[in-house]
Amino acid sequence: MQITSSANPKIKEIRKLRERKARQESGLFYVEGLRHVMEASQQQAGIETLVVAPELLTSAVGREFAAAQARQGVPVLEVSAEVFAGLALKEGPVGLAAVVRQRWWGAEAVQGGLWAALDAVADPGNLGTILRTLDAVGGEGVILLDHSTDPYDPTAVRASMGAVFTQKLVKMSFDAFAAWKQAGGLPVVGTSDRGPQDYHYHTYPEAMVLLMGSERQGLQPQHLALCDALVRIPMQGQCDSLNLAVATAVVLYEIYNHRRDPQAGQLGGER
Amino acid sequence: MQITSSANPKIKEIRKLRERKARQESGLFYVEGLRHVMEASQQQAGIETLVVAPELLTSAVGREFAAAQARQGVPVLEVSAEVFAGLALKEGPVGLAAVVRQRWWGAEAVQGGLWAALDAVADPGNLGTILRTLDAVGGEGVILLDHSTDPYDPTAVRASMGAVFTQKLVKMSFDAFAAWKQAGGLPVVGTSDRGPQDYHYHTYPEAMVLLMGSERQGLQPQHLALCDALVRIPMQGQCDSLNLAVATAVVLYEIYNHRRDPQAGQLGGER
Repeated sequence: MQITSSANPKIKEIRKLRERKARQESGLFYVEGLRHVMEASQQQAGIETLVVAPELLTSAVGREFAAAQARQGVPVLEVSAEVFAGLALKEGPVGLAAVVRQRWWGAEAVQGGLWAALDAVADPGNLGTILRTLDAVGGEGVILLDHSTDPYDPTAVRASMGAVFTQKLVKMSFDAFAAWKQAGGLPVVGTSDRGPQDYHYHTYPEAMVLLMGSERQGLQPQHLALCDALVRIPMQGQCDSLNLAVATAVVLYEIYNHRRDPQAGQLGGER
Repeated sequence: MQITSSANPKIKEIRKLRERKARQESGLFYVEGLRHVMEASQQQAGIETLVVAPELLTSAVGREFAAAQARQGVPVLEVSAEVFAGLALKEGPVGLAAVVRQRWWGAEAVQGGLWAALDAVADPGNLGTILRTLDAVGGEGVILLDHSTDPYDPTAVRASMGAVFTQKLVKMSFDAFAAWKQAGGLPVVGTSDRGPQDYHYHTYPEAMVLLMGSERQGLQPQHLALCDALVRIPMQGQCDSLNLAVATAVVLYEIYNHRRDPQAGQLGGER
């Protein structure tokens, strides 16, 4: 039976997932759009409920996907176009969304490969964009330190373009991160405008964590002290910093280039 | 005399600058925050009116700046904290803002150096972030093609972190851009996921325009046809694209690295 009222308790519960508190308490989040919901399914994310508005879901691919999910036993909530629009975060809703179980990994997941650790990242768009870039360079995941924003915030999920499902998400206090590092964790490379090494000429370890500070403050003294190396992105204009997602991407792609081109950054003026 | 009512016609006019239409008609835009307003002044942007809320403007630097502007003959609008908050786009307003005259350059300004051309960039945050990155790599400015968002949108201004004042802004239709190019304009390098050359191994011209497509669609056939070279940013994850501001930054920093490191991208596997 189709739900036609936004006052329906199930709909109200889904709407609440916009708030961090409700996401934390339930361990769930809300994903919308054909592409993102299919990515969730492909990456074995736990789809708890599929939300379908048949009037809006006109694409054959979308309809078949929803039918297949139902056959596999996924609960399907059929809603009117109006109810769907009330849930939707984006204009022009396509009629498919899902309530998905959050996945979190422990420190033991951080074993090899390329990771980013973010301290107090405030903007969910930045966090989602960083996940998207990490996916592109074959990264493993993100370690969120202390007061970082929620990767399951709708804006972060959307900005990640599906990478929220492909990247491992780890949450740690700074103290736990420092303890993990000292107990034999991966090498940590930090970025700082006062870093002694130009990021282009640095030799990056094979497995590592790239540590980035917050949008406002950059890395704090205790973070800097933990780093095995500090690299600096040169800037020659009037602005004295880059957008956080941009700075992270610039270093991640440099690391990626060094891996696929053994000569990169090796022969420059700063040898 | 202090303005204490948001219904004051001058205040209403300033508020209207949030809308693109009002900005277009007046040729003005609104900048807030000590840092951005001082950057405007430093870059000789035409400050038409300074908006000061004395109750909020507590910093000595800010007060001195406002006094110096007034001495130089800049009209100062004194407003109450409440009126200022009604104008403010950001929480925690610092009590200083300005109405500034927009600056636009013609095609003849695009003579040398590094430029970005953006087709139909939709997100003002992306546009502002691209300006900020261009500033960092010593770029000249941005060419906005056809239906691009407004660099004087408050979100773009804020994201640019002052670069909206340091970078030259040029607006052109695609046809005008093509004509300019064919009449001896700078070489144009486009990015495309089907580009034949890996962006890391490409040799970039000294003076050039980096052409980027829109967030949704990338470069269209007519844009691709205009490019002297097409480069591709490799991606190895599930996502098939990068955020526009990230993709632009990754290529801009690669170009920047090639300029300061003559060996960069020269000795790799794709020689």
